[in-house]
Amino acid sequence: MTTISIIGSGNMARAIGTRAAEHGHTVEILSRNATAAQDLAAQIGHGATVGTFGADPAGDIVFVAVLYQGAVEAVQHFGEALAGKTLVDISNPFNADASGIVTTPGDSIAHRIAAVSPADTHVIKAFNTIFGGVIAGDAPLDVFFAGDGTEAKAGFAAFLESLNLQPRDAGGLGMAHALEWAGILLVGLANNGAGFDVAFKAEVR
Amino acid sequence: MTTISIIGSGNMARAIGTRAAEHGHTVEILSRNATAAQDLAAQIGHGATVGTFGADPAGDIVFVAVLYQGAVEAVQHFGEALAGKTLVDISNPFNADASGIVTTPGDSIAHRIAAVSPADTHVIKAFNTIFGGVIAGDAPLDVFFAGDGTEAKAGFAAFLESLNLQPRDAGGLGMAHALEWAGILLVGLANNGAGFDVAFKAEVR
Repeated sequence: MTTISIIGSGNMARAIGTRAAEHGHTVEILSRNATAAQDLAAQIGHGATVGTFGADPAGDIVFVAVLYQGAVEAVQHFGEALAGKTLVDISNPFNADASGIVTTPGDSIAHRIAAVSPADTHVIKAFNTIFGGVIAGDAPLDVFFAGDGTEAKAGFAAFLESLNLQPRDAGGLGMAHALEWAGILLVGLANNGAGFDVAFKAEVR
Repeated sequence: MTTISIIGSGNMARAIGTRAAEHGHTVEILSRNATAAQDLAAQIGHGATVGTFGADPAGDIVFVAVLYQGAVEAVQHFGEALAGKTLVDISNPFNADASGIVTTPGDSIAHRIAAVSPADTHVIKAFNTIFGGVIAGDAPLDVFFAGDGTEAKAGFAAFLESLNLQPRDAGGLGMAHALEWAGILLVGLANNGAGFDVAFKAEVR
C-alpha cells in the first residue's frame, strides 16, 4: 500500500480518494481551501491527511483533480515540489454545453501540465472517462489512460489494480486528446439513454 | 427482416454484410468494382445481391463502407438516388500513423456526407469504433452511434437489435467527431495491450 496525494477537494477528489482509502492507501489532500481539505480528509477517513498546498506532496502519485481551468496554474504553483512525481491529469476541458472540448490535438490539458512540470515528472491522463459517482463505488472498472514514461505507467497500472480497476493503456501522451474526446462521448451516451451510471469498458471478445 | 444496401466491397462491407445476412436480412452490395461486388455477394450468401453503383439502392438503410477519402465522392455519385435513405457513415479518417484524425469538430466525414446528400436523407455515424473482425462474429456488442433524425435513428437502432447488437445513442451529428476520436482511442488500446479483438462497451454499473 502507498500514499497518494490529491490536489483538489471536489467531487473527483472525493471519489478517487475514497476508493483509494478503502483499498488501504493513505490519502493526502492538498487544496488552496484548507477548510475544504480538512472536511474532505475527514470524509475519506482511513487516516487521510491534509498537506500544505504548494509544498512537497507525500505521495509519488499526485492527482491533479481541479477543474481544467485551474490545472496548469495549480501545477505551476507546486513547481519543483512535483519533481519526479507521476502527475495524473483527470480533467475534462469541455466547452459550455459539453458538445466539444476547448483543447486541440497535441495541446491537451495533459500536454499543458507536462509543459509546466519539472523535467523528470511524468504526466498521465486518466479517470476523465469515468463519472465520479461510478468511481466512488467498488465496481470493477476499466480505466483508460495515456502517457509517456514506461516506469511511471507501470507504477500507475499497479496502483489501479490495487483499487480493483483494470488498467487500459491507450498509448503515449498524444492519446490524451482522444481521451478528452472520450469524455465528451461518455456524456453523450449518458444523456441519450445510457444514464450517468454508465462506464466504458474495453472488452476483449 | 429487411434489405440493407452497402456501398463498398472491403473488409467492413464484408463484416457488416455477413452479420446482417446471418440474421436474416437481405444484403445488396454496390461497388464501382463489379467483380469485387459479385465476389462479396457470393461470400455473404443468404441471397445477397449486387446492385448498380449509382442507381437507387434497394435498402432503406445504406452503409457507406468505403475508405473515408472516397466517401463524399461516392455519396455525390449516387446523388438523388439516396433521397429519403438512412446513410450510415462508418469511416475512420485517421492520419498516416493513426495518432489523430484529419477532420475537425463540426466537419466530421459524417458532416461532409450530410452536406452533399439530398435534403431528406439522414446521416448516422456508426460502426467506426468496432473492428471488422469483431463485427463479423456473433458476439453481442455495443454500437455507438450519432446522428440527427429521431425516426431514422429509431429504425437504425431496431436494425442493430436484430443483429444482436446493443444500440448506444451518443447524440446528434455533432457527436460524430467524438466517435471519430473514439476510433483512434480503440486503436490505441489495441496497440498497447488490449489487442485487436477488443471492443468498447458502455456498461451501466
